[in-house]
Amino acid sequence: MQVAELIGSLAAVLTTTAFIPQVWQVWRTKHTKDISLAMYAFFTTGVALWLAYGVLLASWPIIIANCITLLLAGSVLILKLKFG
Amino acid sequence: MQVAELIGSLAAVLTTTAFIPQVWQVWRTKHTKDISLAMYAFFTTGVALWLAYGVLLASWPIIIANCITLLLAGSVLILKLKFG
Repeated sequence: MQVAELIGSLAAVLTTTAFIPQVWQVWRTKHTKDISLAMYAFFTTGVALWLAYGVLLASWPIIIANCITLLLAGSVLILKLKFG
Repeated sequence: MQVAELIGSLAAVLTTTAFIPQVWQVWRTKHTKDISLAMYAFFTTGVALWLAYGVLLASWPIIIANCITLLLAGSVLILKLKFG
């Protein structure tokens, strides 16, 4: 199980932090034309529901990972609405 | 627990299918300039690791959700490399 936990943790770090370079790029360039509004609307809603799921299960890993992702994906969504 | 399972399932459907409009937009426009290569490189790697985690745990929901996401996010990555 230790290998699985290591792989799962690395997966969580990667899929969570992956949005940082996208937030940075949009913030820097103010260009969002090629980014799909529908994708970020659905994705951010989905992450908010994952967060609710984590709260209902009192699962800290789900809560923390989805708080960070909500902040990052939500930032892309807001910047898309602002600059799009 | 039924409410939590409903919310978790809806969350999984939304965060998985969210990439469909992005794949469609890039496929249609061939424009990927505003999409971060680093984001999709990290995200696709992370999803591949989630898939490995699902296989190690023999968890079909994790396997199925991450197979679909890997296909979709991987498509955006390939189109970014092709048209970027």
